[in-house]
Amino acid sequence: MVQIGDIGERQLIEDFKSFIRQEGRVGPGDDAAVIEKDIVVTTDVVTFDRHFPAGMSYEQFGWYAAAVNFSDLAAMGARPIGFTAALALPPTLDSQAAYDIMSGIDQCAEFCGTGIIGGDTKEGPGIVAGTAIGSMDGRKPMLRSEAVPGDIVAVTGPLGGPAAGFAAIDNDIDCREAKDALYMPIPRVEQGMILSSSGIVSSCIDLSDGLGTALNTICQSSKVGIDVEFSFLPHEGYVEEVSEKAGIPLEKLLIGWGGEYELMFTADPSRLNVLYDDGVEFSIIGVVNDSGVPELVREGKRSRIDYGEY
Amino acid sequence: MVQIGDIGERQLIEDFKSFIRQEGRVGPGDDAAVIEKDIVVTTDVVTFDRHFPAGMSYEQFGWYAAAVNFSDLAAMGARPIGFTAALALPPTLDSQAAYDIMSGIDQCAEFCGTGIIGGDTKEGPGIVAGTAIGSMDGRKPMLRSEAVPGDIVAVTGPLGGPAAGFAAIDNDIDCREAKDALYMPIPRVEQGMILSSSGIVSSCIDLSDGLGTALNTICQSSKVGIDVEFSFLPHEGYVEEVSEKAGIPLEKLLIGWGGEYELMFTADPSRLNVLYDDGVEFSIIGVVNDSGVPELVREGKRSRIDYGEY
Repeated sequence: MVQIGDIGERQLIEDFKSFIRQEGRVGPGDDAAVIEKDIVVTTDVVTFDRHFPAGMSYEQFGWYAAAVNFSDLAAMGARPIGFTAALALPPTLDSQAAYDIMSGIDQCAEFCGTGIIGGDTKEGPGIVAGTAIGSMDGRKPMLRSEAVPGDIVAVTGPLGGPAAGFAAIDNDIDCREAKDALYMPIPRVEQGMILSSSGIVSSCIDLSDGLGTALNTICQSSKVGIDVEFSFLPHEGYVEEVSEKAGIPLEKLLIGWGGEYELMFTADPSRLNVLYDDGVEFSIIGVVNDSGVPELVREGKRSRIDYGEY
Repeated sequence: MVQIGDIGERQLIEDFKSFIRQEGRVGPGDDAAVIEKDIVVTTDVVTFDRHFPAGMSYEQFGWYAAAVNFSDLAAMGARPIGFTAALALPPTLDSQAAYDIMSGIDQCAEFCGTGIIGGDTKEGPGIVAGTAIGSMDGRKPMLRSEAVPGDIVAVTGPLGGPAAGFAAIDNDIDCREAKDALYMPIPRVEQGMILSSSGIVSSCIDLSDGLGTALNTICQSSKVGIDVEFSFLPHEGYVEEVSEKAGIPLEKLLIGWGGEYELMFTADPSRLNVLYDDGVEFSIIGVVNDSGVPELVREGKRSRIDYGEY
């Protein structure tokens, strides 16, 4: 007998992909599935055990459980049209905590322009399985597989906040901003919709597993390479502060961790004016090439970017 | 502090309904939610702890996890267009068991005309949170709230099989048919689609919580009463056998238990020919009246039908 603990979660999810039906070109490799041409669906499980860092409130846990799903819709460019919340909660849980979780989910769904449309509750160790449903409204979903050499690579916002939050907790560093970035990630739903309707974005992915993993995933799915310029990586001042105080290299916070919910996308550089006109904020961090792998260019030196640890 | 265990699952689900957005008239009172006019979504959690009777295989557990969700789509009359499976499994679980669960889900989804479109896997005690997505394709969703006095009440198939299965296990009675009915419920998706397109069905509900609960729910939602004729309740011979051997009244097996996945519907009696022409099988079990409550008529005597225990 081989226990699934020996196989590992990542491999198990890989193995399970054989059960997932590809419909057209959008399959299990992307952030979400597209069915009936226009409907986008994604599901993500979060648990007390794994996704409840010290200092997080139950309301924030609920927000987080919803946000990770809406972020997957955002990466496809879908407009959220509903959210279902399946809960498995300990019978000893304070009822106020249960309502707070639902309230956090509700607030995040409302922030994303939709609401909770259904749910179920059973006894369990503290698990929220969320499913977000979205519509493309005729737009083409953004995939991971269509980046082409010559595209620019960009992100929708500053990086490293949630990683700095983790580091602040672990090292007992007082940094409210970092912890808030970790506790309440903002799904970039509006930005995703603008990106998908722009017509110039060739690929998109969210950074939930970190920049390193996102870069490797795009390179693998699109069969391209990417050069990232370290000095271009946007980040708030507090990320550097936490980096110094915790003694963790800035590079690691910006690239190697996850829990980040900005979008990374590739786009045709000759028509970036479309995005500027649409008012979507972004920072260019690199360019797509044909090297086959992501590399970091720092003070002229190159190094291979690995998958993140998250 | 009030623990959620003290509140009880049913009450907690009731309380959580305040978070659910009503869109049009289809709200949390029905089997599934309807969004964007035509998209139907439902989510249900099943657990090793609660939904894994002795003798069930992992494959059947997977089938069951999918079936309970597709049954909710069936009750609305939706055509299934996708299924997501969020799993929380013990790391000590045999990997073959995990694949069997996925295979069971896959088989049930295929039986219902669709497939697994996404999923997630985390560590947990053995939980499957399934979400089924369907389309009305322009048909009007069947609700629980539109039964009117004078309608007939009917079910799509024989009752009491799963209840007999439970009883057979509990009382060590050898009855393969009963156990199979419990282990592999058939979601009545095709029948639901025919019923919803017939134009003569006023309300519909699945029997997942048992006939008694379904009758009470329709009476409450539609503000009607229902008379059920005991001798009309369809059932296989083995249900009577198990009833006798286990010493459990037949009435209890047919009405008081759940785990049943036939549909119960109300319809205009003057146009039943439409259903006969469409070839959908059903048994009339009673009539809708204005008494406000469901009553059982047995050998001329009336008794109030309670919510089931399931």
